[in-house]
Amino acid sequence: MDATSRIERALDQAMSCADGPSAPPRLLEAMRHAVFPKGARVRPRLCLSVAEACGDDEPGIADGAAAAIELLHCASLVHDDLPCFDDADTRRGKPSVQRAYGAPMALLAGDALIVLAFETLARTAVPAPARLAPLVLTIGRSVGTPAGLCAGQAWEGEKGVVVADYQRLKTGSLFVAATVAGAAAAGADPAPWRALGETLGEAYQVADDLRDVAGDAEELGKPVGQDALHGRPSSVTELGVDGAMDHLEDLVVGAIAAIPDCPGAGMLETLIRSEAKRLVPKSLARSAA
Amino acid sequence: MDATSRIERALDQAMSCADGPSAPPRLLEAMRHAVFPKGARVRPRLCLSVAEACGDDEPGIADGAAAAIELLHCASLVHDDLPCFDDADTRRGKPSVQRAYGAPMALLAGDALIVLAFETLARTAVPAPARLAPLVLTIGRSVGTPAGLCAGQAWEGEKGVVVADYQRLKTGSLFVAATVAGAAAAGADPAPWRALGETLGEAYQVADDLRDVAGDAEELGKPVGQDALHGRPSSVTELGVDGAMDHLEDLVVGAIAAIPDCPGAGMLETLIRSEAKRLVPKSLARSAA
Repeated sequence: MDATSRIERALDQAMSCADGPSAPPRLLEAMRHAVFPKGARVRPRLCLSVAEACGDDEPGIADGAAAAIELLHCASLVHDDLPCFDDADTRRGKPSVQRAYGAPMALLAGDALIVLAFETLARTAVPAPARLAPLVLTIGRSVGTPAGLCAGQAWEGEKGVVVADYQRLKTGSLFVAATVAGAAAAGADPAPWRALGETLGEAYQVADDLRDVAGDAEELGKPVGQDALHGRPSSVTELGVDGAMDHLEDLVVGAIAAIPDCPGAGMLETLIRSEAKRLVPKSLARSAA
Repeated sequence: MDATSRIERALDQAMSCADGPSAPPRLLEAMRHAVFPKGARVRPRLCLSVAEACGDDEPGIADGAAAAIELLHCASLVHDDLPCFDDADTRRGKPSVQRAYGAPMALLAGDALIVLAFETLARTAVPAPARLAPLVLTIGRSVGTPAGLCAGQAWEGEKGVVVADYQRLKTGSLFVAATVAGAAAAGADPAPWRALGETLGEAYQVADDLRDVAGDAEELGKPVGQDALHGRPSSVTELGVDGAMDHLEDLVVGAIAAIPDCPGAGMLETLIRSEAKRLVPKSLARSAA
């Protein structure tokens, strides 16, 4: 089964556990709206790719880790779109959850998705229970404090923020979770996989900053120009478009160099190159990219 | 060490794991504001009491479960106080988190507390890793969907809500988590402990409804009259004050009858009677209570 099918099936299974006779219908709809139809699934595909590169001896656990990471990513988007942050009308080319279901339901949907992510890890770890605590701690660390998504988002409200730190926490953390949890799910030593996640996370953030100034809103499924509008730190503001493009190319080279020695190294290199190409706005694409 | 000291120490340890050089100072302050100084700690005390009644062979795991339940309770209060729900100015006798730190930080603090709860379970389960998955699933179920806090809160937005269902999910679920997780943390069969949690949860909700109409805002540390103001379902609206008092007394009797046979049964009965007395507004106290 290919990665996309594994991820969608794992997300379907997770969501079906959130349903039941006592589940409030609109909350379930709001949660499904946040998770389906699929986004690019960048993080769970990375997680599964690393698990495969490490032998993937318990694919159900890798599927659970990939689904948990995507559920947490979706939860963060739902909460980011709330009026007290971006107040976004659209996301992934359709109305944001808060616009479609209202802010109270969006708040609850995000909360419920966070909880569902950890329940999914616990449900899928049954064949190798000793892997559960490392997965909960790795993935928890990537979304909470002191070094996860919540921390990164909170730095936006602090004065004197350093762009690189902010990016590392806010976007980088889920990429580190993807590589480290992918290895942990397959029973491999996760430590050598951290640097790859960090570098890919930074590359993804730079690409996102570039899309925010040079991307197409319809193609992206979200409004552009948000960083300038909200005065948010951005590598484009800091380095200019050309400087940010140079930085992105360096990061892609660095990520490929950071792949630990393993049978799946070639497959990972191909994946990284094709992602980098996909994520750069067409108007900026360089022949060397 | 008494229950109160165990709980405060476990919460301190959990919160110290959320801190670190990369932690945004205001987010940490907002999280601490939500958790300290202590509330009544009703749910974690219940969790530890059940663990003790079951032998408490791994007190660190029971402490972790108690802390996780309280962190999730605090997170739910922080999110409940946001403008899209109660828009509350005060909580536990001081400014609500959203009033003190703003809505964005309150949203993030709630999210980070949810994540921290699951990390705390994983950190403390080390001596008996097989207990982790049941604890994550029990406690996750009590806060997510289809049968937890998020589900209960979402039912408020649905038409034709049945008061008993709503109460069972919104308040009852964390009491079920407290009794079931208390047993699971001590390696006991958790199933017989569910009914006690359900009955205590309903009793607590009825007492809360009574305090909302007959309590003292200063003593409670939160505004009264909120159910009527927000048109929320309440056992007082449904049964009247006397009817709700009768119902509460029946529930206390039912809870005591639901205590499973164990060495700690007498201790639990004493705890339940003293809690019931503490929670009824003084103006309504009956000589028989």
